[in-house]
Amino acid sequence: MSTPAAVVNVGADLLADAVADQAVPVTRVDWRPPMEGTETDLATVAADPRRAAANARALAAVLEVTATLVDVAPASELLGLEKGQFLHAGPPVEWERASGPLRGALMGGAALEGLVDDPEDAVALFEADTSVSLEPCHHRSAVGPMAGVVTPSMWLWVLEDAATGRRTFCSLNEGLGKVLRYGAYGPEVLTRLRWMGDVLGPLLQSAVRTVRDGAGPIDVTGILTQMLQMGDEAHNRNRAGTLMLLRDLSPAMVTTGFETGDVSEALRFIGGNDHFFLNLAMPACKLALDAARGIDGSTMVVAMARNGTDFGIQVAGTGDEWFTGPAQLADGLFLGDYGPDDANPDIGDSAITETAGIGGFAMATAPAIVRFVGGSVPDALATTRRMHEITLGENPRWSVPILEFQGTPTGIDVTKVCRTGILPQINTGMAGKKAGVGQVGAGLVTPPAEIFPKALTRLAELSRDFRRSSRDL
Amino acid sequence: MSTPAAVVNVGADLLADAVADQAVPVTRVDWRPPMEGTETDLATVAADPRRAAANARALAAVLEVTATLVDVAPASELLGLEKGQFLHAGPPVEWERASGPLRGALMGGAALEGLVDDPEDAVALFEADTSVSLEPCHHRSAVGPMAGVVTPSMWLWVLEDAATGRRTFCSLNEGLGKVLRYGAYGPEVLTRLRWMGDVLGPLLQSAVRTVRDGAGPIDVTGILTQMLQMGDEAHNRNRAGTLMLLRDLSPAMVTTGFETGDVSEALRFIGGNDHFFLNLAMPACKLALDAARGIDGSTMVVAMARNGTDFGIQVAGTGDEWFTGPAQLADGLFLGDYGPDDANPDIGDSAITETAGIGGFAMATAPAIVRFVGGSVPDALATTRRMHEITLGENPRWSVPILEFQGTPTGIDVTKVCRTGILPQINTGMAGKKAGVGQVGAGLVTPPAEIFPKALTRLAELSRDFRRSSRDL
Repeated sequence: MSTPAAVVNVGADLLADAVADQAVPVTRVDWRPPMEGTETDLATVAADPRRAAANARALAAVLEVTATLVDVAPASELLGLEKGQFLHAGPPVEWERASGPLRGALMGGAALEGLVDDPEDAVALFEADTSVSLEPCHHRSAVGPMAGVVTPSMWLWVLEDAATGRRTFCSLNEGLGKVLRYGAYGPEVLTRLRWMGDVLGPLLQSAVRTVRDGAGPIDVTGILTQMLQMGDEAHNRNRAGTLMLLRDLSPAMVTTGFETGDVSEALRFIGGNDHFFLNLAMPACKLALDAARGIDGSTMVVAMARNGTDFGIQVAGTGDEWFTGPAQLADGLFLGDYGPDDANPDIGDSAITETAGIGGFAMATAPAIVRFVGGSVPDALATTRRMHEITLGENPRWSVPILEFQGTPTGIDVTKVCRTGILPQINTGMAGKKAGVGQVGAGLVTPPAEIFPKALTRLAELSRDFRRSSRDL
Repeated sequence: MSTPAAVVNVGADLLADAVADQAVPVTRVDWRPPMEGTETDLATVAADPRRAAANARALAAVLEVTATLVDVAPASELLGLEKGQFLHAGPPVEWERASGPLRGALMGGAALEGLVDDPEDAVALFEADTSVSLEPCHHRSAVGPMAGVVTPSMWLWVLEDAATGRRTFCSLNEGLGKVLRYGAYGPEVLTRLRWMGDVLGPLLQSAVRTVRDGAGPIDVTGILTQMLQMGDEAHNRNRAGTLMLLRDLSPAMVTTGFETGDVSEALRFIGGNDHFFLNLAMPACKLALDAARGIDGSTMVVAMARNGTDFGIQVAGTGDEWFTGPAQLADGLFLGDYGPDDANPDIGDSAITETAGIGGFAMATAPAIVRFVGGSVPDALATTRRMHEITLGENPRWSVPILEFQGTPTGIDVTKVCRTGILPQINTGMAGKKAGVGQVGAGLVTPPAEIFPKALTRLAELSRDFRRSSRDL
């Protein structure tokens, strides 16, 4: 074998860095062609005089937010949600186009609210579309994992940005397997949800308020900092986060005056569900990203969300508009006898974690995640490094020890995605495609590529409008 | 700069592997000279016909043990320890040669047991040496972190090997800073120890027995498996372990019938001390290693322990003999205004974790540890890889995700240490050298090199005896 004149490295930066550290000459070849047909829009947006400052402002706004846990209360109280109103994950969708797991969760939700006795009877209710209405969680400052169905009687976590008082909301996590958010609606699902409403919600409310009014509210952003040093990427691994929440709430749970049997059961329920903290990670991420909404000229993504049919993104510089395309099938590992044919396309608001720079973006810090979502350990490291190529900056509060404490890649830039063709990497659960089935697996998925050029086109239009109106002044 | 003809790699295998994967020619230079004067003994022991099988048996014995948490009770009950009897960390030592932190802990322990009112008065007691006695924890199937002082009234964790019923013991962890095990003995130290004896011990006993008799005893070996996937190396990082213990005990703690105020305080005490689980990790490691004691012909280390003056090891093939040398000063990070001049030499039984393949041996899985003990992230990776060079095998139950789930390096081989000159790497806390000070920092340390040739010499003697007696038969 001949001696190489130099090391040529495409993509795998860990090697390149290691070699560079040793003073071996390295040629980095990270040029990739832009997405087809985006050249003109890219040029327009690149020339927008507002862009650099707007993106700097958007990123800074996200990084400034500290999410604190201030309350737990029913959705009816917090959001004024009324009987017959249903929130769901992702961009807007009607019953006709709703996927199996979303339909299943809506049917279960209708039974939980007493609109029907048998969840199966809810199909007619939603088809008639007279007494019920669907609305995205995101339109109510909320996020919901998987189907993301929220009904008036469900208790929600309340997160608050200490500096501004802005709030976001998320339901309590039910566990894995046969659960409403994966589209299951059997009796055990409803029994669990009723216990969560009757016991868990009020107990957590009491504990959260005791902690808030005593030592001060729990710093959810700070727990996320610790999680990233403990093998959680905070989307499909929330084990350390769940344990730290339990540590912070359990002393107050004991002194609420609730029956010790109920307290013990609640501790066991939370401790038995490694995903319990996901429903705090998600609204913490939304709280941060919402700080960047409505910044004209910014090309930063502020939401990625899926309803099981469509994948949608929202961008800081384009207001409340959704740019959507078909949700993709995840590639991953399946539970029991389930296989790819059983899986529904990508669903849930949980991609808000990747939008904020964790989840799939922080896989390097959670190498054990590959046992849950598939892939290899070097893939996990490479993924985080690749995500730095499409993001505006790093989060100094959320760092990855194994990458020598580099901050997580934060602030997906529509122009960088279009210019490199690199799509955001999402770790996700997989729901069964038939209503009622529940979870079938977990895996890796990306958004449909076309939504980024769509958003870019709109950014280019707005940029031209801006420059026209500037000239007219 | 000229183009290198090839990459020459000494030691840093991560780079070598990465380069080798890319088919760049790599010359590995990992030959090192044996420790001076060990050539003859190495040859003798290498030729021992029992060695390979004995070491295989020793390693297998260690790997077979599952440590379960079966009880909590006072040392007087469990070990028959009587007033005036003191256990301590490390090999045997007398008051005259005892270091400051060990003396401080003994003085506090004497006050705790009511032998004196003022800890300072205990100096005369220990100098007189008539009513008191010192004995290593290891001689009573126990281990103690830092000074490791155990007195009759202290409550101990009881770990049991399910297969054999063998047991090991360790005290309850007091937290960091001004605590007895670091040699502090002020009123706050004694007040905390009395609360631990009056409230925490009995409460944990009740919870541990409830769990044991219900779902079955907590699998401490299994928690260690999870910890290694959560950034703990289980010596100086036990955060995830502590949280999992809390998760597993808290539901039972609530239903013990103790005052809710006491339960709440206990939950807060445990949750506020990230090192609480260390005192379960240590006896779990001892329980595993004790399975390999007394295997003739085996060159595997079964204990490394320090009393603040001497560092001692015990070896599977040499019975209960200690091979000792002067304890070294750790290199690390200091608390507050403390510096190297304030530190006592290495102290504690906690190096039992490294002996079992975790702690410093598993630093690769806990890159965040470098913020506590010093060093860099690449050092942490390199340390684990280096420890594979002096160990007999890997632990399939304790794996390191970032090293693609390679098992931890397990079973320190005296011959490999002597042949390579590579010393075991230990992560450790640092005690103040003056009695009463408490913790001053944390850092990295190795055993004194000469104890391995000492052990080797004894192994060679025993080997010659064996071959002589074999010929005589």
